[in-house]
Amino acid sequence: MALIEPRTLKGFRDFLPAQMIPREKLMETARTVYRRYGFVPIDTPALELLEVLTGKGSEETDRQMYHFTDAGGREVGMRFDLTVPFARFAAQHINELGTPFKRYHIAPVWRGETPQAGRFREFVQCDFDTIGTTGVVSDIETALVIHELLQAIGIDQFQIRINNRQVLAAFLQAQGLENSSTAVLRALDKFEKVGGDQVKKELENAGLNALQADSVLALAAMRGSNDELLSQLATMVTGNEIGEQGVQRLRDLTSALRAAGVPESRYRIDVSIARGLDYYTGVVFETTLGELPSIGSICSGGRYDNLAGLYTKQYLPGIGASLGLDRLLAALEQLGRIPKQPRSADVFIALFDPNGINDYFRLASIVRAAGWSAEVFPESKKLAQQLKYADQRGFRVALIAGSDELAKGTVQIKDLMNKISTEVEWRENPEQLSQALRTMMRLSDDTLLA
Amino acid sequence: MALIEPRTLKGFRDFLPAQMIPREKLMETARTVYRRYGFVPIDTPALELLEVLTGKGSEETDRQMYHFTDAGGREVGMRFDLTVPFARFAAQHINELGTPFKRYHIAPVWRGETPQAGRFREFVQCDFDTIGTTGVVSDIETALVIHELLQAIGIDQFQIRINNRQVLAAFLQAQGLENSSTAVLRALDKFEKVGGDQVKKELENAGLNALQADSVLALAAMRGSNDELLSQLATMVTGNEIGEQGVQRLRDLTSALRAAGVPESRYRIDVSIARGLDYYTGVVFETTLGELPSIGSICSGGRYDNLAGLYTKQYLPGIGASLGLDRLLAALEQLGRIPKQPRSADVFIALFDPNGINDYFRLASIVRAAGWSAEVFPESKKLAQQLKYADQRGFRVALIAGSDELAKGTVQIKDLMNKISTEVEWRENPEQLSQALRTMMRLSDDTLLA
Repeated sequence: MALIEPRTLKGFRDFLPAQMIPREKLMETARTVYRRYGFVPIDTPALELLEVLTGKGSEETDRQMYHFTDAGGREVGMRFDLTVPFARFAAQHINELGTPFKRYHIAPVWRGETPQAGRFREFVQCDFDTIGTTGVVSDIETALVIHELLQAIGIDQFQIRINNRQVLAAFLQAQGLENSSTAVLRALDKFEKVGGDQVKKELENAGLNALQADSVLALAAMRGSNDELLSQLATMVTGNEIGEQGVQRLRDLTSALRAAGVPESRYRIDVSIARGLDYYTGVVFETTLGELPSIGSICSGGRYDNLAGLYTKQYLPGIGASLGLDRLLAALEQLGRIPKQPRSADVFIALFDPNGINDYFRLASIVRAAGWSAEVFPESKKLAQQLKYADQRGFRVALIAGSDELAKGTVQIKDLMNKISTEVEWRENPEQLSQALRTMMRLSDDTLLA
Repeated sequence: MALIEPRTLKGFRDFLPAQMIPREKLMETARTVYRRYGFVPIDTPALELLEVLTGKGSEETDRQMYHFTDAGGREVGMRFDLTVPFARFAAQHINELGTPFKRYHIAPVWRGETPQAGRFREFVQCDFDTIGTTGVVSDIETALVIHELLQAIGIDQFQIRINNRQVLAAFLQAQGLENSSTAVLRALDKFEKVGGDQVKKELENAGLNALQADSVLALAAMRGSNDELLSQLATMVTGNEIGEQGVQRLRDLTSALRAAGVPESRYRIDVSIARGLDYYTGVVFETTLGELPSIGSICSGGRYDNLAGLYTKQYLPGIGASLGLDRLLAALEQLGRIPKQPRSADVFIALFDPNGINDYFRLASIVRAAGWSAEVFPESKKLAQQLKYADQRGFRVALIAGSDELAKGTVQIKDLMNKISTEVEWRENPEQLSQALRTMMRLSDDTLLA
């Protein structure tokens, strides 16, 4: 029979253990941090009725969506983000759940877009949202969660960039640009990437006069400490109620971050942050890595006015953000923070004597009871071959016992990094083995995400 | 604008926090146990080329699969299990990974079958497999993982039922039934459910004579201690090499489980366990719950001869098992082991004084530093309303501070179960708050999976 060529679809990929171990660890860290703040997990189906998914979608989203007619003749699609399903979910269940409702959702989404370098057709989103409240408390909490999340992942140098759409709205109004807001916000968002000249050209193409275009550029170029920017912005929006509210929210937010002990270097008001999406109405966030700003924002979000208007008349304002898992992993890899060699377990147990299998399992069970993971090699191959395997898999320690040692109730503990061996008695006194392991483990260092 | 009715597709479901919290906990437990034994995670795409997925599939599988033509004209399908993708994955990457290779994969799969009570079109599988070895060590390890997994989940009364396909093969050969093996194995598998009369009828329909049918029934009815069954089976297969090997594997396995301290009540040789699937060739497992045997096996698997023959000429024997997450959760729910009310966090912090927001966040941060999760209510609603929310969400403890308390640097700690309150000073001495919380937490009991 002819073989089928084993391959994945274009734009899709397998995760080998070397990639999946840090991936799982990141997701676990996100879950832990979200839970510490009272967010709870939900899940929704990968497949939904097309009508539900396309409700708000632009033509572009529709084109990117995987959709088909199922066996029952229904038009269905695979979710392309976690926001639309959350809106449908909230409309359906909010009466049972009550508000405020804080949920997180970590799950894959699919987009049939043309694959580019670093873009895939299947990727994981890690969203957290608070709905049913307009208070500044949730603005503050969202920023604190982003901050704690990146710290928990082990990143020191990052900056949360903060802006407020109300401030931008006041600016647009003052310049008579309400009707060009999409073009202006898009141009603002690009400012850092493409520079002032290019942005100016785009703005003029969008119909702005030179004066208007210059005012947008002046806004984007505003720099200063958080306090300096707050007073500049306050002056700019004076007399515009919406704008004043926006500046007050920014002031409350930065003051709360300061009071919470978040270092000043970690958050910065940046009026050029607009976030492309139309639905943000208040605070917006982006987060950049100090060591790799070029990779773009790895955690973004903001406040929106009404989540689920397509599905319910119930007013559900909220705020949320999303960790870009794949982008962050790409960054950590580029920064050399992901070990090349995944360790399948801490302790390797060589299988020497086929009649001693029960003893090897007993050794493994002592190791696990002491808190480490252990792997028993499944076949009695040559020791050199087994140790090569252990080396390739990045084990720290090997336990080696032949028939003689098993008869004596002893085992060789070998540190695979420093090549030191010691023999310990374990059968009568398992604690001696745990103790020796503890000593040896202290000698080897752990890498981030190992 | 007309509203879109918020609803899920037939056969699909949302997971609200009350379901998702225990679900996530179970997946985390599975990951932890698998890792302790040296299994490493992988992931594969939800969508694969139809050709890859249907390679081995029966017509039934093909009919159940969600498949369609993508925008690029490729025939694609959503994975219906994790075994076929693993076979493709192994064929593609095994040279890089090396053998033995131990992987786990926890991910959703999709089947378009007609939804029945308790059956869904989207469900999660939790597979673990060892490939590249034929040794009994992996038989033993697989059983030990199943045992530890159920223990770690918090289940006491369960039984791993063990059989060996080689023993069944020897029996079929002795009875001249090699060509009716599928019918016989199916009938055997049903024995406990439908009883001897029904099975006999099916066997006769399949062309067995009365003598043959009786011999199958006699096999299925074999009962006794593990040691008694081992000697009966040894007698039965005497002279048949394959059968003798099978009995020896069972003997090695049960002896190892005994040596590892697994209670005798937790594993049982059961010759009526055949597992429907054709590809098992050695040991097979099923696991039933002592308190709810009727729900069927919640963890099953076995040894197979060659995983990836459709995709590669490389011989990849292996063994694996899968935890039926959805079935297990249904069982735990039926047994009242899942709390009705999910707790979003341990400690609730009421928001009384809108000018004290920074202090409420500081309280939350003291609570989190002490190891608990904390939620700050996002709006300064009436206290009664906030406490009602805290009660509904199952919080254990509330922290309450109005302007007076904030001025004094104190806070009321309220045990929401026992309705006891105490006031502590926290601003000058945060440790006093942590200490008081520790005392209060000890008073409330934790439920399984809470």
